[in-house]
Amino acid sequence: MSKLGLIAGGGALPVSVAGRCEAEGRPVFVIRLAGFADPHLARYPGVDAGMAEIGRVLSALKKAGCDAVCFAGTVNRPDFKSLKPDFKGMTLLPGIIAEAAKGDDALLRKILSVFEAEGYVIEGADDILGGETLPAGALGAFSPTPAQIADLKKALHVAEKAGELDIGQGAVVCDGLVLAVEAQEGTDAMLARVAGLPADLRGSAADRKGALGKAPKPIQDLRVDMPVMGARTIELAAAAGLAGVGGVAGKLILIDHPAIVEAADRLGLFVWGETR
Amino acid sequence: MSKLGLIAGGGALPVSVAGRCEAEGRPVFVIRLAGFADPHLARYPGVDAGMAEIGRVLSALKKAGCDAVCFAGTVNRPDFKSLKPDFKGMTLLPGIIAEAAKGDDALLRKILSVFEAEGYVIEGADDILGGETLPAGALGAFSPTPAQIADLKKALHVAEKAGELDIGQGAVVCDGLVLAVEAQEGTDAMLARVAGLPADLRGSAADRKGALGKAPKPIQDLRVDMPVMGARTIELAAAAGLAGVGGVAGKLILIDHPAIVEAADRLGLFVWGETR
Repeated sequence: MSKLGLIAGGGALPVSVAGRCEAEGRPVFVIRLAGFADPHLARYPGVDAGMAEIGRVLSALKKAGCDAVCFAGTVNRPDFKSLKPDFKGMTLLPGIIAEAAKGDDALLRKILSVFEAEGYVIEGADDILGGETLPAGALGAFSPTPAQIADLKKALHVAEKAGELDIGQGAVVCDGLVLAVEAQEGTDAMLARVAGLPADLRGSAADRKGALGKAPKPIQDLRVDMPVMGARTIELAAAAGLAGVGGVAGKLILIDHPAIVEAADRLGLFVWGETR
Repeated sequence: MSKLGLIAGGGALPVSVAGRCEAEGRPVFVIRLAGFADPHLARYPGVDAGMAEIGRVLSALKKAGCDAVCFAGTVNRPDFKSLKPDFKGMTLLPGIIAEAAKGDDALLRKILSVFEAEGYVIEGADDILGGETLPAGALGAFSPTPAQIADLKKALHVAEKAGELDIGQGAVVCDGLVLAVEAQEGTDAMLARVAGLPADLRGSAADRKGALGKAPKPIQDLRVDMPVMGARTIELAAAAGLAGVGGVAGKLILIDHPAIVEAADRLGLFVWGETR
């Protein structure tokens, strides 16, 4: 089995990827991006690296004997002026900054191309997680009503349209009204915002209404940045009074599938995979 | 001069409209929508009314001798189940609810049609305010740099695309990245959210970057719901580190033009009208 270099940003996804490698006996070496990577990743072989230390990252991957790399987790777009690039970083940074001005997607593709040029196979977190993506239909005990499925379809439509503009991956719709669209604040902050909207715009624990939809950007490189959902997504959706959450079947990574089902069934929310 | 029935939701726009009528000596009668209308409107002749008391509103307008009506200000979409309609409201509500499921815009057009059917001329707040809309080019002392105008153009593009989906009117872009898109939370809450994003994603008072763009929804009835900007918009944009704010020339109502210019010049922000 090839050795994986895991380039780890923030959040639960890189921890899941490293854990899966360990469970399968696959050797993994973790590049912990300073200021982002979860502290739990320190127990794997690896190094801490700044975002612009590209030469250091490449030589650490080479020294560790990695054959493939996986980018996983969230990274805030840096203030390029404050980065401290190493020598390799200095030669690459102008081209990266030029792509960054075109949006997140162009930036991501540029960074991938640097690693591909060094001969690494790029693996998607979803492949490594062994197909733990959203299946079609109901995942837990609850299924959406016709009104709820209409809200979910609209939320996915809005998320896809927003994705075409390289804005984000998620939207919340209730009774046909778009309550929120996700951009740089992320899904958790968007759901917290919906919970703070006037009560007559949204549902409640007693009368759940509306849905969160998460869809990949059409131009997004799914190997790196497929939308994710975890038990926390369900809990925040419940706190916002939503009836459920959904995505495109096969295009949403489930972080800890049993925990998601447990939370959804306990709180009375549907989890639904739409087919495209 | 015809007598105006002002149907007043929340915010500063209805207060500006009533004040303008008073200054011009035009008789005005204010329907203060309960829970929304600014308390300052109580000094004008008028009545308080619930959102579903359509019969009461129509008879009050008739009794007051109004010839025209103006809808102005923000109203949260009601929970239709909790409305207390009067008799006329009961006959109209099913049709209104059916339109509401299609989005804010359909709801608005339906409500306008009820008043037009009763013979009232619908006047836009912008017309009454005497053309106090954003002019083309720089409004105050500051003009955007090329990078800032690129951010503003992208923000307006995103706002227009979001508007096509009946989502909202505003977006914030910084260094080519869409930081936030406005939906039901409104412009003020969106700007507060941008101020809370990580510092390396946005500008600061020392290094202003990025722009707020506000554009009307393409399908929006400009008589009722043209985007607005006030001095508070400038102050919140400044707190979010933005370099400026802008809109489409002629399609953004200025609430208190001199106060906007004073705030922008004091805080160092541009206010810019794009031509279409």
